[in-house]
Amino acid sequence: MTTLYATYFYSPSVNELLSDEHTIASMLRFEGALALVQAQCGIIPQESANVINNCCNMEFIDIEQLKKDVKLGGNAAIPLVKQLTKIVKMQDEEASKYVHLGATSQDVVDTGIALQMQAYSLWLETQLSILKQSLIKLTQEHRQTLMIGRTLLQQAKPITFGLKVAKWLNSISQIQCSNPSLTLGGAVGAGNEFIGSEVHKRMINSFAFSPTSGGGGLGLFACQLGILSGHLGKIAKDISLLMQTEVGEIFEGAADGKGGSSTMPHKRNPVTCTAILANATRTPQLVATILAAMPQEHERSAGLWHAEWEPMSQLMGLTAGSVERAIELINGLEVDKERMRQNIE
Amino acid sequence: MTTLYATYFYSPSVNELLSDEHTIASMLRFEGALALVQAQCGIIPQESANVINNCCNMEFIDIEQLKKDVKLGGNAAIPLVKQLTKIVKMQDEEASKYVHLGATSQDVVDTGIALQMQAYSLWLETQLSILKQSLIKLTQEHRQTLMIGRTLLQQAKPITFGLKVAKWLNSISQIQCSNPSLTLGGAVGAGNEFIGSEVHKRMINSFAFSPTSGGGGLGLFACQLGILSGHLGKIAKDISLLMQTEVGEIFEGAADGKGGSSTMPHKRNPVTCTAILANATRTPQLVATILAAMPQEHERSAGLWHAEWEPMSQLMGLTAGSVERAIELINGLEVDKERMRQNIE
Amino acid sequence: MTTLYATYFYSPSVNELLSDEHTIASMLRFEGALALVQAQCGIIPQESANVINNCCNMEFIDIEQLKKDVKLGGNAAIPLVKQLTKIVKMQDEEASKYVHLGATSQDVVDTGIALQMQAYSLWLETQLSILKQSLIKLTQEHRQTLMIGRTLLQQAKPITFGLKVAKWLNSISQIQCSNPSLTLGGAVGAGNEFIGSEVHKRMINSFAFSPTSGGGGLGLFACQLGILSGHLGKIAKDISLLMQTEVGEIFEGAADGKGGSSTMPHKRNPVTCTAILANATRTPQLVATILAAMPQEHERSAGLWHAEWEPMSQLMGLTAGSVERAIELINGLEVDKERMRQNIE
Amino acid sequence: MTTLYATYFYSPSVNELLSDEHTIASMLRFEGALALVQAQCGIIPQESANVINNCCNMEFIDIEQLKKDVKLGGNAAIPLVKQLTKIVKMQDEEASKYVHLGATSQDVVDTGIALQMQAYSLWLETQLSILKQSLIKLTQEHRQTLMIGRTLLQQAKPITFGLKVAKWLNSISQIQCSNPSLTLGGAVGAGNEFIGSEVHKRMINSFAFSPTSGGGGLGLFACQLGILSGHLGKIAKDISLLMQTEVGEIFEGAADGKGGSSTMPHKRNPVTCTAILANATRTPQLVATILAAMPQEHERSAGLWHAEWEPMSQLMGLTAGSVERAIELINGLEVDKERMRQNIE
Repeated sequence: MTTLYATYFYSPSVNELLSDEHTIASMLRFEGALALVQAQCGIIPQESANVINNCCNMEFIDIEQLKKDVKLGGNAAIPLVKQLTKIVKMQDEEASKYVHLGATSQDVVDTGIALQMQAYSLWLETQLSILKQSLIKLTQEHRQTLMIGRTLLQQAKPITFGLKVAKWLNSISQIQCSNPSLTLGGAVGAGNEFIGSEVHKRMINSFAFSPTSGGGGLGLFACQLGILSGHLGKIAKDISLLMQTEVGEIFEGAADGKGGSSTMPHKRNPVTCTAILANATRTPQLVATILAAMPQEHERSAGLWHAEWEPMSQLMGLTAGSVERAIELINGLEVDKERMRQNIE
Repeated sequence: MTTLYATYFYSPSVNELLSDEHTIASMLRFEGALALVQAQCGIIPQESANVINNCCNMEFIDIEQLKKDVKLGGNAAIPLVKQLTKIVKMQDEEASKYVHLGATSQDVVDTGIALQMQAYSLWLETQLSILKQSLIKLTQEHRQTLMIGRTLLQQAKPITFGLKVAKWLNSISQIQCSNPSLTLGGAVGAGNEFIGSEVHKRMINSFAFSPTSGGGGLGLFACQLGILSGHLGKIAKDISLLMQTEVGEIFEGAADGKGGSSTMPHKRNPVTCTAILANATRTPQLVATILAAMPQEHERSAGLWHAEWEPMSQLMGLTAGSVERAIELINGLEVDKERMRQNIE
Repeated sequence: MTTLYATYFYSPSVNELLSDEHTIASMLRFEGALALVQAQCGIIPQESANVINNCCNMEFIDIEQLKKDVKLGGNAAIPLVKQLTKIVKMQDEEASKYVHLGATSQDVVDTGIALQMQAYSLWLETQLSILKQSLIKLTQEHRQTLMIGRTLLQQAKPITFGLKVAKWLNSISQIQCSNPSLTLGGAVGAGNEFIGSEVHKRMINSFAFSPTSGGGGLGLFACQLGILSGHLGKIAKDISLLMQTEVGEIFEGAADGKGGSSTMPHKRNPVTCTAILANATRTPQLVATILAAMPQEHERSAGLWHAEWEPMSQLMGLTAGSVERAIELINGLEVDKERMRQNIE
Repeated sequence: MTTLYATYFYSPSVNELLSDEHTIASMLRFEGALALVQAQCGIIPQESANVINNCCNMEFIDIEQLKKDVKLGGNAAIPLVKQLTKIVKMQDEEASKYVHLGATSQDVVDTGIALQMQAYSLWLETQLSILKQSLIKLTQEHRQTLMIGRTLLQQAKPITFGLKVAKWLNSISQIQCSNPSLTLGGAVGAGNEFIGSEVHKRMINSFAFSPTSGGGGLGLFACQLGILSGHLGKIAKDISLLMQTEVGEIFEGAADGKGGSSTMPHKRNPVTCTAILANATRTPQLVATILAAMPQEHERSAGLWHAEWEPMSQLMGLTAGSVERAIELINGLEVDKERMRQNIE
């Protein structure tokens, strides 16, 4: 429960996206959209839908109470729907009958996560594009910069630094985030008269989800983040090794107070690489947890579904941190071409 | 970064122990004790030590600033020592020269974690004792309660429910928490004139650490929590299966609003088992992360050390949650002896 | 090193594909193709290429000697190239100069694995197609078969068995195996005059590899197998729960001696589900190992590359076993519609 | 299913211990001892016990047939007991009634593994003792050998090489292997008239198992191997980094053909470190699998028990390989004191 490392292993903007507030807000978006769509389909009165949608507002939610109630129900949807219903009821008793109509906890929780994944994917796409631009620039600058290639930590034969960076770039370029999907199945995932195919279609449109995806779960999304974190770990590993005192070919950009030691203020530590490497040590196991949670019992699991929530959030948070750190790292990189040449000899 | 499940997967009292505040307070305990012990050994003036020790107070620390500065230094010790030195200096310039004398970041961070582990172990010992008492009572009550034994999910031959519980008890009884140890090695772990063997001995005494332990790292502690979480997972697995509608031999204790569904309020879900099972799905991978972080480079690692902090904290938090849930589960358990007998036939 | 479970957790035909013989044969295919392509490009004499290619024959290889020599070089390519060169030299001294020309160990090992992955993908595609056909048939048969839906292991509301199977089918249908790619970079992966772009292009054609893939490593392939194994685990979990004595809605097909117990011969155990579930317990961690091995040092890693070989092979083997078991399971499934209806009441 | 790396990642003597033959022989030891002990307790005729015990001989077992039959029963005990019973019956029909009397598959399989663990522990104790002697010798030789200490891969302050080795030694010295225990519970683990407390006591004595251990499962044993593999990984990490061309302070001992490259025969690769590092990359996940397999259903699990067998065997095999490699590594180590001194400057 420590947040000491919120700016180091993680990215503040993504932390915000993954916060309690945003998590609940995403669940409220689901409830609001569901009511509006059900009204469009003539399933509930438009007026009631408007009231519900207006009540789907974070300001009305007592988060502390919700957290206490989570323990009784075992997920955040149950106390949220309870609070929401009460809020709606205070405004319009009739409308309160239509809150969460036909839906179940898993619909709210999973679609809420999907909405966070969607926002995350947009953020990630932009950041990866920045990172790739920086790597392209670095590749071009060092097309001719000779350095020694190393295998099994031994000097082998010369390469160019540009080639090394081009391979980093190539690995990052292959990352594709899969589209998140709507979950809307009702009590046992079998659908019902309140959440028919028209409601589905409109909900998907309303959230701009991909119509074709769905059903694949979190596995592929988690895997792609795990692979990305691994590729960034490779970049950080190379740079941290090239920053060794005895090698001295590359350095993280200097910043006031950055990379210091509590006992040896003169040292220049690979502080940014360190965060990326720490993350790459953790992400494989987070992916494993998501995969281990796949063989879920029947129409809803007792435990495996619940095991996905925090690890998925951590995986998103840590990978975002690595991406943000990698951009800082590449943009600030100092390359000592002279030392590279000397080390060949 | 979500805390929605703070009362469900976790234990509030342990959450407190693992909080930012307590983490920093533990680090300050290290700095205060170090100064006092160094004074006792005649290494620094007693007066300076007193000033330093008095300044080792959470109230003086700007946590938000510290979190921002973590990113520059890569650990929480660097900005903490900086703040502490400044605080001491405002009171006594001479004393400020003796802050953190001879120590390094890893000494503060690792000993801080060891102090948290120590407090955690005390908590755990008490809780496990409560859990074991409850299991003993249950064993005794059901020494003669016949039920069907099941292998590979098939009914096999009769056992007693008391025997089943006795095996749960036996597994829990074998858990032993290893003693945490002092880390105090200075810049490269080699010691120096300010942290000699007398300082070591007195620090160990001051914290009531075990004199013989040390050097083993977090591995064994992490493993023991992982094993405990697995044993509790087995109890929860059995109970959740026995709670199945078609089996109906055991039930989690009822509580107002507990175990309900957002769509089917009449259902009685294994909400407590679910939390324990979710935790048992996550803890093996947290142990793996601690083990994966072992092959650390040279005198301090660039990444692997850093990968230990949050997973260790999560492992402690989740296992504590499982223990707390297990006590609630066992204490509230409702056993339907009649149904057990019927199921044999 | 036990092979006791070769027919249970695994698939015999895939075991064959992953055997030492086939692994070495795949590496020889690389060496033979390289020589032929280099001849086509005018880099080495056609005659020499023919001799080399003819010598790339498992019959000439002393596998026991190769295994002993692996320890000295740290991979199977070094002793294989040594043996091959000697074999070629006995026939044609001139040709022996052109063996493995311009290539390095990683080229042979990784392309060898890629060739195994390619054959595996073909096998998998066929098997998944069979499995999907069986699932489609089952869906159609049970479109109207009512059963109770269960959430958190509690009876909830009715669904059809056809819907349950349709969801299994949907999950399997989303599996896509990524294309393996050629590795051919020479000593430090930088290429050289013997393995230029024309050689690359022809090698890719010769193996029918995808021209666009490459550089992504094993991560995505491993992840897709991990996801598939998880989906199959979900099917096996459901069926094993439905086979419980107290539920009794579905049964694995009977076979002489199948599913028995050493003490209770009358029992009908979910033996096939058990294998799939055991595999799904292991595969997440094998994926994690592949991901953990990603941050490889410089142009070739000392340890992380080597950590991929056996886990990748095990992941392929176990997932194949699960697919084969799943086909047997679905094809032999016995559905007790009457019991399904009774359990609703 | 590849065995190409049997001499590199593994240890031949331990491979032998973990082979199919030895696995089955251990199971036969259980069956033979059970009969003899049951005769001593007056449960079965001594003559029958003698016949059974004489038939518990690997030479009589058709391993290939057994492997085929594993698939039907889901474990190796069922076909083994079937073969054994048939063999006994051919000699003495009366005796065949007493084969495996009162025992169940899990008793045979788990006690068989425990016997392998016991033999393994003896091997490990001896090897660790050799390794520790080598490390002690190295510590003593280099008590005064100055070298630079490095933190976060940066040169920091001088230490002695003796201190570095002493820390390696200290970590290894803390490894303790837990005692394996007898499993003997019958069909549902509840015991029966054929396997009472006297039989238990005598079986434990007969195998020289610890009387007090038991019930803890494989978890702690697995963890201790995982920790050992991690400590050895740390040694290999340090040495591989110190072997870097630019550092050049330590070298793996040379051997004819050792450490070469298929393209650059002059290179001196850290081939032995590489194997240990590869193993340390894999072992954390194998431990995680053992822990993930803990929440087993009821009196015997459908899948989780089965998930333990191969990972436990691999964990034992890989850790043994790392120990054997570490002994070779330390015994052959070449230390360049002059270079160590130069690197300080």
